[in-house]
Amino acid sequence: MVKVGDNTEYTPIIRQYKSLKDQYEGCLLFYRLGDFYELFFDDAIVVSRALDIVLTKRGPGTPMCGVPTHSADSYLGKLIKLGHKVAICEQLETVEEARKRGYRALVKRDVVRIVTPGTLLEDGLLEASENNYLACLSNVGDNYGVAWMDLSAGIFNVRSSRLENLDSEIQRIRPRELLISDRLKEQGEIELILRRHRCAVTSHSESFFDVKRAEKVLCGIYGVNTLRGLGNFTDVEVSACGSLVEYVRTTQKNNLPKLCYPKVCDNKSCVLIDGGALRNLELFCTQSGEKEGSLISVIDKTVTALGSRLLKRHLSFPSSCPHVISSRQDAVEFFVENRNVCENIRDIMRGIPDVERILTRVKMLRCSPRDVCMLGKALAGILRLRQAMLVVDNPMLVRIVGEFGEHEKLLKLISGTILENNVSHARDGGFINPMCNARLATVVRIESESDKLMQNLRDKYRKLTGIGSLKIAFNSVLGYYIETPASYKLKDAIFIHRQSLAHTMRHTTAELRELEETITAAKSEIIELEAQIFRGLCLRILEEAQSIELAANAVAELDVLVSLARLAVENKYVRPIVDDSREFAVKGGRHPVVEMGVRFIANDVNLSENNKMWLITGPNMAGKSTFLRQNALIAILAHIGSFVPAESAHIGVIDKIFSRVGASDNIALGYSTFMVEMAETAAILNQATDRSLVILDEVGRGTGIHDGFSIALAVIEHIHDVTRSRAICATHYHELPKFSSYLKNVQCFYMKIEEWQGQVVFLHELVTGVSGKSYGIYVAELAGFPKNVLERARFFMEELGESGGPNLNPASPMERTNS
Amino acid sequence: MVKVGDNTEYTPIIRQYKSLKDQYEGCLLFYRLGDFYELFFDDAIVVSRALDIVLTKRGPGTPMCGVPTHSADSYLGKLIKLGHKVAICEQLETVEEARKRGYRALVKRDVVRIVTPGTLLEDGLLEASENNYLACLSNVGDNYGVAWMDLSAGIFNVRSSRLENLDSEIQRIRPRELLISDRLKEQGEIELILRRHRCAVTSHSESFFDVKRAEKVLCGIYGVNTLRGLGNFTDVEVSACGSLVEYVRTTQKNNLPKLCYPKVCDNKSCVLIDGGALRNLELFCTQSGEKEGSLISVIDKTVTALGSRLLKRHLSFPSSCPHVISSRQDAVEFFVENRNVCENIRDIMRGIPDVERILTRVKMLRCSPRDVCMLGKALAGILRLRQAMLVVDNPMLVRIVGEFGEHEKLLKLISGTILENNVSHARDGGFINPMCNARLATVVRIESESDKLMQNLRDKYRKLTGIGSLKIAFNSVLGYYIETPASYKLKDAIFIHRQSLAHTMRHTTAELRELEETITAAKSEIIELEAQIFRGLCLRILEEAQSIELAANAVAELDVLVSLARLAVENKYVRPIVDDSREFAVKGGRHPVVEMGVRFIANDVNLSENNKMWLITGPNMAGKSTFLRQNALIAILAHIGSFVPAESAHIGVIDKIFSRVGASDNIALGYSTFMVEMAETAAILNQATDRSLVILDEVGRGTGIHDGFSIALAVIEHIHDVTRSRAICATHYHELPKFSSYLKNVQCFYMKIEEWQGQVVFLHELVTGVSGKSYGIYVAELAGFPKNVLERARFFMEELGESGGPNLNPASPMERTNS
Repeated sequence: MVKVGDNTEYTPIIRQYKSLKDQYEGCLLFYRLGDFYELFFDDAIVVSRALDIVLTKRGPGTPMCGVPTHSADSYLGKLIKLGHKVAICEQLETVEEARKRGYRALVKRDVVRIVTPGTLLEDGLLEASENNYLACLSNVGDNYGVAWMDLSAGIFNVRSSRLENLDSEIQRIRPRELLISDRLKEQGEIELILRRHRCAVTSHSESFFDVKRAEKVLCGIYGVNTLRGLGNFTDVEVSACGSLVEYVRTTQKNNLPKLCYPKVCDNKSCVLIDGGALRNLELFCTQSGEKEGSLISVIDKTVTALGSRLLKRHLSFPSSCPHVISSRQDAVEFFVENRNVCENIRDIMRGIPDVERILTRVKMLRCSPRDVCMLGKALAGILRLRQAMLVVDNPMLVRIVGEFGEHEKLLKLISGTILENNVSHARDGGFINPMCNARLATVVRIESESDKLMQNLRDKYRKLTGIGSLKIAFNSVLGYYIETPASYKLKDAIFIHRQSLAHTMRHTTAELRELEETITAAKSEIIELEAQIFRGLCLRILEEAQSIELAANAVAELDVLVSLARLAVENKYVRPIVDDSREFAVKGGRHPVVEMGVRFIANDVNLSENNKMWLITGPNMAGKSTFLRQNALIAILAHIGSFVPAESAHIGVIDKIFSRVGASDNIALGYSTFMVEMAETAAILNQATDRSLVILDEVGRGTGIHDGFSIALAVIEHIHDVTRSRAICATHYHELPKFSSYLKNVQCFYMKIEEWQGQVVFLHELVTGVSGKSYGIYVAELAGFPKNVLERARFFMEELGESGGPNLNPASPMERTNS
Repeated sequence: MVKVGDNTEYTPIIRQYKSLKDQYEGCLLFYRLGDFYELFFDDAIVVSRALDIVLTKRGPGTPMCGVPTHSADSYLGKLIKLGHKVAICEQLETVEEARKRGYRALVKRDVVRIVTPGTLLEDGLLEASENNYLACLSNVGDNYGVAWMDLSAGIFNVRSSRLENLDSEIQRIRPRELLISDRLKEQGEIELILRRHRCAVTSHSESFFDVKRAEKVLCGIYGVNTLRGLGNFTDVEVSACGSLVEYVRTTQKNNLPKLCYPKVCDNKSCVLIDGGALRNLELFCTQSGEKEGSLISVIDKTVTALGSRLLKRHLSFPSSCPHVISSRQDAVEFFVENRNVCENIRDIMRGIPDVERILTRVKMLRCSPRDVCMLGKALAGILRLRQAMLVVDNPMLVRIVGEFGEHEKLLKLISGTILENNVSHARDGGFINPMCNARLATVVRIESESDKLMQNLRDKYRKLTGIGSLKIAFNSVLGYYIETPASYKLKDAIFIHRQSLAHTMRHTTAELRELEETITAAKSEIIELEAQIFRGLCLRILEEAQSIELAANAVAELDVLVSLARLAVENKYVRPIVDDSREFAVKGGRHPVVEMGVRFIANDVNLSENNKMWLITGPNMAGKSTFLRQNALIAILAHIGSFVPAESAHIGVIDKIFSRVGASDNIALGYSTFMVEMAETAAILNQATDRSLVILDEVGRGTGIHDGFSIALAVIEHIHDVTRSRAICATHYHELPKFSSYLKNVQCFYMKIEEWQGQVVFLHELVTGVSGKSYGIYVAELAGFPKNVLERARFFMEELGESGGPNLNPASPMERTNS
């Protein structure tokens, strides 16, 4: 039947497939066929390779592969992760329904949604505690616009940026998918950013990003004549927002939820964390990509997905406004001082579901009874929260309580309508409380009485036939039937034969049929009535959607504040002073992540006006890198309103945080470690200001002694003289402090070491002055070097000391003394 | 109804849950409830946190959370990744079936399997091109036993090891789950290994690993009285194998597939790649964890999952036997020279499914009709392969063809039985060819004729009632019914009313009922007959299982050889000479991964008897690291039988490959970069032999100048004098060559640079001698340093040059000349 060649020679199924596929070019088409999603032709080849599933053929000449629907989500997840887009085509009727339209009628099918990495809505594929962002990058002249949206959680932001900050912008947003024009995609700097971030990239022609076109799209979506009313957007922001919305619309097949207005995030209100610092400081994941060991893994004590996502947004965009910071600190302090209130509120919040994502599903009418049930739980939780917070008089918390809103009526309606224990079986009906509808109550009573009648009928037939093992059973093919052992013959004429099996016989009777019909008619009506009532309930929820969203956001804020309070108590953090000064004084500071694993020695830092730069020397293993990073992390924590791991801290607001610490090389991308380090250092020299904080580890390492030393000196001089930033630098060049002594604001410190009975003790304690030794050989001993190698190394060390170093006349080769 | 407290006060559902949960302590219990898997009590709390899903309550006092069954696989995948074990409890009957047993009868449920990371069998959770290993570590005295099994692919290996090699062993096996005793888990070195690998760890008491007990388990499983017949196992190997099998048996609920005998992999037959080298050389993934950019991503040209997995096993365990290597090379060469045969075979193999994993499902009677259909495709493919290989006379290939076996009869049976186009709908029957069973043919004819009769009936009623829009429809609640617009009244007495809807009326008739009964009875019989025939077919397949496995392995071998041939042709590799000599001569060698992205300058190396150590200097960006790594990679490729990226190569077999290149630090684990580097270096000094290859980058960097230099010198001296390994070392200490001139087998080289009109040109070309300069400042310029900083750095550089270096008298501080 199947022949290769002209379309008309394909089977009806393949013809249907092809006409759908034509409409969704650029997507993989998941074509529903019974219990599988099948892919054909090129799609089949691509997917069989991507998922490593076998490529087969449907008739000659039609490559095919497929995934079972019950595990489709995990396959879908893999394809999405690889950056593919998938159009999901479903059967819109059953095979039986189709067959009634004609002997060989084709089942109706259509694409119901397009799944892309940035527009995911399936709960199973989303990370609950991560926002799932689609970002859009646009460009007009020197300006770049970045818009980003979490469709599942109703978030939509936009900001303008300069080319040099794009790396940092994209990195702090961490989008799953980036929409970009073909032209920008080819641009050198942007190509580099894209390679570094490795999110899915979707490109469109330049015209897709046209400002006029974007404006029209936005006006259409929001039903306004001009965007003036929504905010003061620049051209590049309009282009980014409009193109993003247009793209989302196509993926959702016009079944778009009501979008919130785009919010402009301006650059002045938050601390810019440099791209290098975002990577090196391991805020969200370690450099090997794991969450464990990141800052967020230690500080996130939130109990709701809402709060967890908000905390991450704070960490990406710390505030640079002392007033905002101190309001948050006040609220955190309230909870630190009122531990009982704090714990009580946490307990209540723990049961609050992910309102944002549930609401999105309600808006798209894709929600289940379970979703509505969850929403009811959320509203009940919010009501209890409001009760628990009545005692509170902190201004920020009072504002939050006000935003909880009044949802008692809706809550009552939901809990009076949905039967919580039955939502697992929604497909079979029975999840609506019969008491909320007179007709439903009647039909439900009929159905449940029939159950008893069925038992009576069985007893009657047992008596009639004398077969004690006679039973009335049910299966999906025959419906209800009477089953008896095959050894008995049913002689009574009322028994109508239906099926003979090896050991049993199956019959029916007129009476059984009648009863079955009553039951099935009732069941069918119940399902229909329940669906109707459920739809009504969803529409009622939509009326309050905006106010529920406000409440959800209030819960998120509260969760973050309570979480920070809990963190402060558990890990003994203190409230820092954050003001408009240029101070950076931390007493007894600790590294928030490292202190969790090991006994930790706290250290002070004070980058006051005449001490703006600290230069740290000292051996390996003594904790220089940890000290550097801990100060950057303390600064970031202070700017999100958190308490900090220290005895006390006074920090003047910072505009940008830079850090060049840790090692990373990417030989496949063609960069040497040294090149990466130089590029990160260059960003600091070019962009830091006198409000910035700079953390520099091992400047100039990884090259020769002379040029490395010269680079280090020049970099330190530039930060000291030109950018005048607050800075902490570490180095292995013990000579650097002496050579840089002409820089008057540089203070030198080193990590203290004690030698005791031939053992070296790392005290992890910072003291003024310059370290004399590196103890590299001692570390080699700890690492398990053979004894004779250690002896030789110590011998060379002495020789070098006398001769003045490797730089001196190497004319006389060293002789071995023992070997 | 639900009260907290004594068990008897719970609902029947919760009581059923609790009795199941008691049997599966240590597992999360996925309890099937309609369309959800629900979790209760502590499980609910754990899972709601792990998956970020909301915790709710089933009645007061019973915490609950759940995941919908249709996306359960992706949630399951997440839990498994987190190292949890999950017991899957299914409903063993429908609600209707249960209800017939009594008005409130509970649905029967039981645990059907336990899913753990190392015993996965679900295709959706497995990576097709990766083996999924469960490993077991045992210990007797100084000996350690490592057994590892891929249950899904029928692989079972064991080997003995020493403590110092365990890191490397575990790393090359890359297990998903490791079974270990409570005692070993606490042991310092092993704790470190576990922290580094981050696979799921399952621990049992010491007694679980008892040798006697393990022996009993193995004898039981294989039905033998003594293990003598299976191979010559040491105690520690018996313990590892037996404990592993015992654990697997419990997870599979005794539904264990027939296991193959454990194969002893001895240490002498393969090259040991040191743990540090496995990490640094990026064989399987880059250091940031991505596959893209790894060696395997470049060399894997296999077209079957079977071949892809075998190639990875080769790469983990390269052969150290020149004879094995040259046999493989001969076969690869055959395909290089016979491109047409090669391409033809690739095309055939491309359609061969994952036989190993399908067979495992058949053995456990968990296979679907689709699986059997796939197996048929595989057998057909193997038959075609055999045809295509008839011309071949290479000994290894002839052996492989012999292992394909004779499966024509089975193939004919499968393709005569299974209807390929219908396997997607297996649940509804129709996937068995009616022609293969007389009774089935009859019943199928009855069913399909009834379809026509149904149409006739509709036409008859249309005529009778005069309603042209009358139709006969079907739904799962009512079955077949006659639907007419509500505006018509059906007066004829034969129509029995069933349901009224808003716009339509539904009726039935005695005749329709009878026809329905014929159809449903036929359908029910078809389903039963087909299941019976399918079971028979599976048993028939099992009879040939062993021989099919052999064939699958032959396909894998062939795929690997063809893949290596393709690689050689595409990337212009040559056949290396691998023999018993101590040579390491590569002419025009290239880095297999880096050459894919950029224009690549080839370089030679020749570590002959009096030149055993090469010392490389030269500036950054010039390609030192790349040169070092490429030689290690060429060595590994040569030992798996692959051709290599070079003009020619002569390599005497290597026993161990060590490399200390690249940078990695793990501050959260408490190691400094320097400590990691020293530990990797210590491993080399302690374990390398005169048959080893050592690759060392930047020894002694990351500490002070004096001690770093001394360590470097001592390390080089030790390798030169004591281990006498073939070695390539790179350094930034330009003085090192001069200071080590007393070591007679050291040759010095540097990466050539040309300066031309103020520009630096990196020639990536290796020449004899010592580099004079580092060009670090030039790299800083490329990286975007501000001009004035570059000028200052150059100024310092000159000053230092005159004064003799940072080591010299720093009494006179440098003065700024321009600022």
